[in-house]
Amino acid sequence: MKLASFLIEGHPCFGVIKGGRAYNLSVEYPDVPDLKSLLVSFPDIAVIKAQLESTPCYSLDEVQLLPVIPNPEKIICVGLNYESHRLETGMPEMKHPVLFTRFSSTQVAHGAPIVRPKVSEKLDFEGELAVIVGCAGRHITRENAFQHVAGYACYNDASIRDWQMHTGQFTPGKNFDNTGAFGPWMVTPDEIADLESQTLTTRLNGEQVQHAPFSDLIFDIPALIEYISTFCTLVAGDVIVTGTPGGVGVKRKPRLYMKAGDVIEVEISGVGVLKNLIVNES
Amino acid sequence: MKLASFLIEGHPCFGVIKGGRAYNLSVEYPDVPDLKSLLVSFPDIAVIKAQLESTPCYSLDEVQLLPVIPNPEKIICVGLNYESHRLETGMPEMKHPVLFTRFSSTQVAHGAPIVRPKVSEKLDFEGELAVIVGCAGRHITRENAFQHVAGYACYNDASIRDWQMHTGQFTPGKNFDNTGAFGPWMVTPDEIADLESQTLTTRLNGEQVQHAPFSDLIFDIPALIEYISTFCTLVAGDVIVTGTPGGVGVKRKPRLYMKAGDVIEVEISGVGVLKNLIVNES
Repeated sequence: MKLASFLIEGHPCFGVIKGGRAYNLSVEYPDVPDLKSLLVSFPDIAVIKAQLESTPCYSLDEVQLLPVIPNPEKIICVGLNYESHRLETGMPEMKHPVLFTRFSSTQVAHGAPIVRPKVSEKLDFEGELAVIVGCAGRHITRENAFQHVAGYACYNDASIRDWQMHTGQFTPGKNFDNTGAFGPWMVTPDEIADLESQTLTTRLNGEQVQHAPFSDLIFDIPALIEYISTFCTLVAGDVIVTGTPGGVGVKRKPRLYMKAGDVIEVEISGVGVLKNLIVNES
Repeated sequence: MKLASFLIEGHPCFGVIKGGRAYNLSVEYPDVPDLKSLLVSFPDIAVIKAQLESTPCYSLDEVQLLPVIPNPEKIICVGLNYESHRLETGMPEMKHPVLFTRFSSTQVAHGAPIVRPKVSEKLDFEGELAVIVGCAGRHITRENAFQHVAGYACYNDASIRDWQMHTGQFTPGKNFDNTGAFGPWMVTPDEIADLESQTLTTRLNGEQVQHAPFSDLIFDIPALIEYISTFCTLVAGDVIVTGTPGGVGVKRKPRLYMKAGDVIEVEISGVGVLKNLIVNES
């Protein structure tokens, strides 16, 4: 099942995307304020599917998609988690995942513009797999990790490279307003038979710039969940952005940054395509 | 004026602390869900003071303090922002502020325990000045920065040193559950005549371990607000934790980590004293 957050006539709603239509589950669950809250005590998928016959639905043109989870409590991003990317950066092998964070206020939806700021021309793409947490937990073991996964989505962790490297901490370059693209929807795990064999592809103006299978992740999803939940409680709606493969613009010769008018797509097989236009900050 | 967040009979409220009593402003502003929201369109201080005569009030024993802002959209922490701390770490001078982040879920109130986790014995103190944002803004200039400050509070950015140094990114060691102490209240700027001449003092079991005036900040408050607001929009309730002076436990010989039963205090002259007991994770 595909779940999404969207505006209907300006009102924030959430629901199911099916057959090119958006089903407004907010009508079925009036006491649930948002998709994150639905994931806290997620109904049986069969129950939701049965409800859809009577759920108000809209064509995708009639709704305005929001970031999949517009308001996660935490967005935890993983750096250098593909060997192809680690090698191009020249960074040493790590015993632990490299973690940085993104504020929820930096996110943009599928179809919304990613904004190149006035202060830099070094806006780079990073296609990634986002894991959305469902059931909350601390000290989650590898073995139990997938019980805490509510779904998967495409993420573009677009980065301002010079600001990322102002100091040793990546925070500024990863937290420009309107740079974290997250969408169009999340797909529940029951629809993805074998995640490891799925692939991530990033295309800039139609040309492939990144491509890797998820079997290439250095720290796999259970390892990330085990490590992160050792220090903090993961809760419903938290987003783990699992890292980007080789091919980023800053490591190409010549360098390849995004500029106004460019179209950037992140495709995950079995999940969907996240597409955004680049615009200049006004 | 001192503003705080607290529970009254289990209900989250906010209000004024005055003469050892907590005035429940949530009664006066029933449509305002929390202190962060009050700061969005902050009433005139004179108006609030006039209201207090009829505002229900409680002794401080009757309320349970919460972190000053329990749910900030952003907590932005500054590293290496005192020369005394930079020198003890051996880090080079920086042209830009070193920024990392803390999740709001890691915060604890004045009087609540800071938890030393099972996985590490390297729990260290970091007494700091927290700046709470009022009026929202992006691209805020140095000259206008103080117009965006709603108040000041004590913060203890307690850190798990080994997890902080697992990789180049500080995230894990700065985001253990129950480590970010924030309280007891915030003080509005009108009550602090000359912030630069105020001082920060950290005491472990009554013994002074850190002491510095705010004139020692390398990047002062206007510089931090200007830099941060270049990449993201600051909004009401955002917290900028401005850095810790020299004296941290990890750089002492012998090293001085906190253990169960210890009492850690962060005092800021003109603001108050934030006090927490250390307990072991259960």
